[in-house]
Amino acid sequence: MRKDGIATREKILDAAQDLILDRGYVGMTIEHVLDRVGITKGAFFHHFKTKDDLAKALLQRFADKDARIYGETRERAEKLSDDPLQQMLIFIRLFEEMFERLTEPYPGCLFASYLYELQQFDDETRGLIRESFRKWRELLKEKFEAIARKYPPQAEVSAASLADAFTVVLEGAFITGKALDEPGVISDQLRHFRNYVELLFRQPRP
Amino acid sequence: MRKDGIATREKILDAAQDLILDRGYVGMTIEHVLDRVGITKGAFFHHFKTKDDLAKALLQRFADKDARIYGETRERAEKLSDDPLQQMLIFIRLFEEMFERLTEPYPGCLFASYLYELQQFDDETRGLIRESFRKWRELLKEKFEAIARKYPPQAEVSAASLADAFTVVLEGAFITGKALDEPGVISDQLRHFRNYVELLFRQPRP
Repeated sequence: MRKDGIATREKILDAAQDLILDRGYVGMTIEHVLDRVGITKGAFFHHFKTKDDLAKALLQRFADKDARIYGETRERAEKLSDDPLQQMLIFIRLFEEMFERLTEPYPGCLFASYLYELQQFDDETRGLIRESFRKWRELLKEKFEAIARKYPPQAEVSAASLADAFTVVLEGAFITGKALDEPGVISDQLRHFRNYVELLFRQPRP
Repeated sequence: MRKDGIATREKILDAAQDLILDRGYVGMTIEHVLDRVGITKGAFFHHFKTKDDLAKALLQRFADKDARIYGETRERAEKLSDDPLQQMLIFIRLFEEMFERLTEPYPGCLFASYLYELQQFDDETRGLIRESFRKWRELLKEKFEAIARKYPPQAEVSAASLADAFTVVLEGAFITGKALDEPGVISDQLRHFRNYVELLFRQPRP
């Protein structure tokens, strides 16, 4: 595809994402997208066969971007310390920094948006959502296992559910920040999670 | 209104809530509701002037029910202990018990569903969502203030954001449990929040 073709495709995806997070998937029509991007129906259908096709491409792009951010942030944390606990605390702090810059409520997570209209999507799309949440769990679970080997936890916890807790905080904070119209909720809630990890693994194994 | 009139109104609201949590607000049509309840269009419009009218009544009912559950659970916890920290730990545990009974993923929170289609709702409805999240904050904030007076926290925290954290855990766990198709996520995540509160306020003020 030529460069301007790729640019148009990305513009369609960007517009569709904004629209879906604001209006819902069913509430977003192809006309809304055409209006927002300033293209014809023909140009749209050159890139996506159907609205459903667009929905899938959008979710795949969101999943890829998320996986990249999680992976890169983990790598950066691993370069900044050799200790698994410090790596996790740095990882959380890097996410806090990302969200501290917000001046308006975060528009939300595309996965959550799809999950609240789940009936509209086929098994393939549902599978992609589940796989993404599993990937996040796996990525952080290993790290929590390494932490627990070095620092005995102050309460009985599973590494998998601790890994989920990071995702839970983000998903819940997006909603709460939007409901209260307070963008600061996300970094505040990440700080609570960081406090928890710190308190839970306070003492190194003797 | 006659007793069977109230019953039909409640049946419509129940059906609409299930449908919205599964299909989204725009994705739910009045025909879906008629089908589900087994009534005529005339019977529907006897109870609700418009779909928008139904949406508002539904959110108000959800908000009232939520406020009642929060309030009653707080009261129960206050009867079971005189210590504010123990009251909070009991409060969380009572919610854990509620969600431990789930055998299927929780269908979700109507507030979150509306927030992911926010453009579809007017200022009055948005205001009701904000007020509900503020009420939950107020209800638990007082309690965290009383705890902090007695037990010095192990990290610098605000009572308001700790109160929000409870809501954040629930909202995030509904989404994560649904994504992973694992109902146990909700009680697991509440347990993490309980661990956090316990670790944060471990030592009574000397």
